[in-house]
Amino acid sequence: MNYGVAVFPSKKMQDIANSYRKRYDPHYEMITPHMTLKEPFEVDASEIKDIATEMTNIAKRHKPFKLHTTRVSTFSPVTNTLYFKVEPNPEITSLHEDLHSEFFGGMSKHSFVPHITIGQKLSDTEHADIYGQLKMAGIDQEEMIDRMHLLYQLEDGSWTVYETFRLSGDDQ
Amino acid sequence: MNYGVAVFPSKKMQDIANSYRKRYDPHYEMITPHMTLKEPFEVDASEIKDIATEMTNIAKRHKPFKLHTTRVSTFSPVTNTLYFKVEPNPEITSLHEDLHSEFFGGMSKHSFVPHITIGQKLSDTEHADIYGQLKMAGIDQEEMIDRMHLLYQLEDGSWTVYETFRLSGDDQ
Repeated sequence: MNYGVAVFPSKKMQDIANSYRKRYDPHYEMITPHMTLKEPFEVDASEIKDIATEMTNIAKRHKPFKLHTTRVSTFSPVTNTLYFKVEPNPEITSLHEDLHSEFFGGMSKHSFVPHITIGQKLSDTEHADIYGQLKMAGIDQEEMIDRMHLLYQLEDGSWTVYETFRLSGDDQ
Repeated sequence: MNYGVAVFPSKKMQDIANSYRKRYDPHYEMITPHMTLKEPFEVDASEIKDIATEMTNIAKRHKPFKLHTTRVSTFSPVTNTLYFKVEPNPEITSLHEDLHSEFFGGMSKHSFVPHITIGQKLSDTEHADIYGQLKMAGIDQEEMIDRMHLLYQLEDGSWTVYETFRLSGDDQ
């Protein structure tokens, strides 16, 4: 089964993201707006309780963190993906690292760019056009995030939340 | 803000439900397949922490319960809604009651029929036709549910999970 770890921003930020995703993101129906902390990974369903336990421990080591979206950016030329850039900070980086420990099979191949996707799988022309517009519109929203979610994927590609973990920082 | 309480069945049951919902349920994109425990209710976002606390207490009083879907049924003639009937049992009824205590403003006006919706907003002809087919196909899936979810609704109608609560039964 495919699992992933994500953070859902506030309703306000999600509503803004959806106003774009509705038109520009074919994954719009699959999941509500989010910041991915751990890319989809395949694990036998029998192992998910161990993963949830490990995430419970991680959540105890991390305090709520600031999520500040500062501008619209793009992963082009790698992919024609537009996103709200999330300002990296030590709290986000450290949480991401803990979710890529030896237990989880180590770090991802790609460097971590915290973001909230608002458009993807765009043609080159669409991408250039929409990026131009959205860069002008911009974004500047700041909020605190106090939880993360472990999700699994259904056959149709949509994601269901398995469990939430509150970032308590109790074990810091 | 609109909140609701639901249970997500296993991936297997959700995949079966989605094979129908994809075609017959216009809410297919808004949420993955679920059994509603508490219909949408409006609450100021500032009150959600109190609600989460109350749900934490409720989760401690309830053990995991059996979710057994036994057949395809319909809410017609009230609405043209098709669903997997979930066999009622004392555990489900009691959990539903606790989610409709004085704290939550009391019982709902409708009697509680535990179900997983697989089709809705169908025309009379569609309804008769599809109900005939699905009744024959039937359903008979049994599983244990060990958690419930508190969700909130975005402006586009889709639902995001705010928090999960594990039914531990520790306070029984």
